[in-house]
Amino acid sequence: MQTIESQIIRTHQAGVHLRTATDRQIKMALKALGDILEKDPSVLIRANRKDLARQQPDDPRNDRLLLNEARIRAISNSIRVISRLPDPTGKILEKRRLENGLQVEKITVPLGVVGAIFESRPNVTFDITALCLRSRNACLLKGSSDAEYTNLAAIGLIKRSLKVAGIHPDAVTLLPSPRETVEHLFSATRYIDVIIPRGSESLIRFVRKNSLVPVIETGAGVCHVYVEKEADLEKALNIVVNAKVSRPSVCNALDTILVDQAIAPEFLKRLQPLFDDHRVEIFAEPKAYSLLRGYSFLQKATEEDFSREFISLKCAVKVVKGIDQALAHIDQYGTRHSESIVSRNKAHCERFLQEVDAAVVYTNASTRFTDGEELGLGAEIGISTQKLHARGPFALEKLITEKWLIRGNGQVRE
Amino acid sequence: MQTIESQIIRTHQAGVHLRTATDRQIKMALKALGDILEKDPSVLIRANRKDLARQQPDDPRNDRLLLNEARIRAISNSIRVISRLPDPTGKILEKRRLENGLQVEKITVPLGVVGAIFESRPNVTFDITALCLRSRNACLLKGSSDAEYTNLAAIGLIKRSLKVAGIHPDAVTLLPSPRETVEHLFSATRYIDVIIPRGSESLIRFVRKNSLVPVIETGAGVCHVYVEKEADLEKALNIVVNAKVSRPSVCNALDTILVDQAIAPEFLKRLQPLFDDHRVEIFAEPKAYSLLRGYSFLQKATEEDFSREFISLKCAVKVVKGIDQALAHIDQYGTRHSESIVSRNKAHCERFLQEVDAAVVYTNASTRFTDGEELGLGAEIGISTQKLHARGPFALEKLITEKWLIRGNGQVRE
Repeated sequence: MQTIESQIIRTHQAGVHLRTATDRQIKMALKALGDILEKDPSVLIRANRKDLARQQPDDPRNDRLLLNEARIRAISNSIRVISRLPDPTGKILEKRRLENGLQVEKITVPLGVVGAIFESRPNVTFDITALCLRSRNACLLKGSSDAEYTNLAAIGLIKRSLKVAGIHPDAVTLLPSPRETVEHLFSATRYIDVIIPRGSESLIRFVRKNSLVPVIETGAGVCHVYVEKEADLEKALNIVVNAKVSRPSVCNALDTILVDQAIAPEFLKRLQPLFDDHRVEIFAEPKAYSLLRGYSFLQKATEEDFSREFISLKCAVKVVKGIDQALAHIDQYGTRHSESIVSRNKAHCERFLQEVDAAVVYTNASTRFTDGEELGLGAEIGISTQKLHARGPFALEKLITEKWLIRGNGQVRE
Repeated sequence: MQTIESQIIRTHQAGVHLRTATDRQIKMALKALGDILEKDPSVLIRANRKDLARQQPDDPRNDRLLLNEARIRAISNSIRVISRLPDPTGKILEKRRLENGLQVEKITVPLGVVGAIFESRPNVTFDITALCLRSRNACLLKGSSDAEYTNLAAIGLIKRSLKVAGIHPDAVTLLPSPRETVEHLFSATRYIDVIIPRGSESLIRFVRKNSLVPVIETGAGVCHVYVEKEADLEKALNIVVNAKVSRPSVCNALDTILVDQAIAPEFLKRLQPLFDDHRVEIFAEPKAYSLLRGYSFLQKATEEDFSREFISLKCAVKVVKGIDQALAHIDQYGTRHSESIVSRNKAHCERFLQEVDAAVVYTNASTRFTDGEELGLGAEIGISTQKLHARGPFALEKLITEKWLIRGNGQVRE
C-alpha cells in the first residue's frame, strides 16, 4: 500500500512526462477509454450495483450515483468529443525580440497536477480525467465513499487506456476516499497546482477554507431576472418561465425575479397561471405578496430567501422602484454568476450590462445560456463565480497556465 | 470613527463608480497625484520623520522606511509612467453571434476591489494605488504600523488627487494598521476580489493560510543556473556572476549553481576569483566542496541550503551528473520562479525550456531579466510564482477579470 504522499509525488512526476507526450498519444488514450466504456460497460455497472446496494434504497441521492448503459454511453460520447478538442497547450501568446537580442516567447503550458474533490456522480470521474488528459494535466481524483466501488472500477479502465497509449498510468490517480486524504491534498503545494471542488456548497466552502493549494471554485448561482418597466411583457414571461422551469436543479436557473413597480401588477397577474402549471413556490416580499395574493403556492419571503440558490421549483419575487434599486439588490444578494434584464430601453440595458458585476450579464435572454457548450467552449468543469484565472464557463482553455521562454546568447543585465 | 466593515463596503461601492469613470478622470487623478508629490514633498517627509523617530536609530530596516526628496521624485515619476499606460479594461476578447441570434461578447473588466497588505516601504502605497486606479480597481491599503504617519500623509494626498478628478475618495482607503484589520479583509469575500500580500515570506504564508478571499502571491525565488557540460565557460561565468552579484537582494537573483561534473573542475576554478572579488559566500555539496577547497568563503552545504532564497551574497553550488539530475534538482528545490541553462547543445537547451516548470525559463541568459520593465510590461506588482491568473511578472494587464455580455431579443433555452 502506497502512502498518500507517495501517490501525490508519483502523479506529479507523471505530469512532467505528460507535458512532452505526443498529441497522438493523448488522443489514443482518450479514444481507448471511450471504446472500452462502449464495448464493455458491464465491469462498471457491476461495481456500481455494489455501491448502490450499500445505500438506503429510498435515498433520492441514489439517482446521482446510478450508472446504466445509457449513461455510460453518454460518458463515452462526451470523452470522444473532448478527445477531438484542440490541445490548449503550446499556444504562442507573445513572441518578440528585445533590443538586447533576447528572444522572448510566452506560451500556454499545462497547469501540472489538478486535484479534483467531488461527490457521488461517477460521470465526474471521467469528465475530469478526459479534460485533464486533453490539456496534459496529471490528475488526482478524490471521490466520495458512496461511489467507492464504481470509482475503483473506473480508474482501472482509465489506467488500461493510458497504457494503450504508452502514457504513464500514474498520470491519473484515484486516492482513497477517507476524509484524511484531503488534508494531504490541501498541503501539497509543491506537487499539486490547483484544486477543483465539485459538489455541494459546504464541500466548496470546506475546500476554500482549508486548502493551501489554490482553488478554482465553481460556486452557487443566485441568479436574477430584472423585469424593467419598459419590458416586452410577453418576452419577459417567456424568459422568466424558461429560466426557472427548464432545469431548476442547475446553477444558472433563476432564483429571484425583480420587477418594476410600474408593471408589477400586470406582470405578476400574467405570471401566476404559468408558474401554477409547474407548481412553482413563490417567496414574495410584502409588495409582491399583496399583488400575488390568491396564488396557490405563495409564502412571505424572509431576508434569507433572497440569498438562496433554490435549485428547485422555488422562486423569490421582489417589486423594485427602478434600475438603481435593482442594481443595488443584485450587488447585495447576487453571487456574481448570471444576471439578466428584460427591457426595450437601450440605455438601461447598457447600464445593466456595464454595472452588474457577474460572470455573465444578459439583456433580454434567459440566464440558462451560461454554459460552456451553449457558448461554444465545449465541455466544462463548471461555472466559475470567482474572478481570478477562470470566470464563467470554466472549460478546457483555462486548464492551462503561462510560461515565458527566453533564449539568449550570453545576455546579462546591466 | 468608521468600522472596518463599513470602510470595506464603502470602498466596494466606490469601485462600482470607478468602472464607469472616464479615462480622462483616471489620468487626471494620477497626474494630480504626481504633481502634488513633486511640488510639495514636505508633508510626506515630515510625517516620515515622525515614523523614523519612533524606530531604533540603528535598525537596518529604517532604510526601507525612509523617504527623501529623491525617493519621492522617483515615486512621482513612476506614477506618471503608470498614468500613460493604456487602460487594460474594456478590451474585447471575443465577439460573435450565436445561431440563436444571441450577441456574445467577452470583455476585460476591473477586478473590483484589491486588498493590499504590505510592510514598511512607503513607495508600495503609491505603486499599488496608481496601478489599481489605472486599471479602475478600488483598493484597500493595509500598511504596517512602523509607517503609520507616512501612510496617513500619503492617503491624504491620494484623496486630494481623487477629488481633483471627481472620483469618489472612498476608491482608495487606508485601513488602520493593527493586525485585527487583516481578519476583516480575509473574510470579506463579498466585497474584496483579491488580496495581494507584499513583503516577507512569513507575511505571504500567513495571508495564504488565512484568507478566504483569493490571493495572488508574489513569492520567493530559489533560482538556478545549470552550467551544462557543453557550456561556453566564458558566458557561463559572466551569467553566473551577473545573476548572483548585480542585485543580490531581489527575487530573480541566483541562489544555486548546478554544474556538470565534466566541466566542474575548470568552471569552479575560474569562478573562485570572480566570486572572491565580491566576497560571495559559497555553500557547497561534497563534490563541489572538494573542488572549491581553498576558497576564502566556503562552507559545507546542508540539505536546507538548497531550499534557501539567499537574497544576499551567498550561493549554493552542486556538481551534477547531467541534465536529468539537474532537472530533478530544480523540480525538487526550485520555487517555479526563474531558471537558466548555459549550454551550446541545442537539444539540451530545448529540453530544459520544455521540461522545467517555472514562470520564466532561460537558455544562455541571466535570471535577472525576470522583471516587468525588462520584458516590456511596465511597472509590476511583483513576480507571481503561482500558476493561476498571473504567472511571472504581474503587471497592470493582469489586474483585470473577464465578463461575458450577452445581448438577446427574447431568447430562451430549449
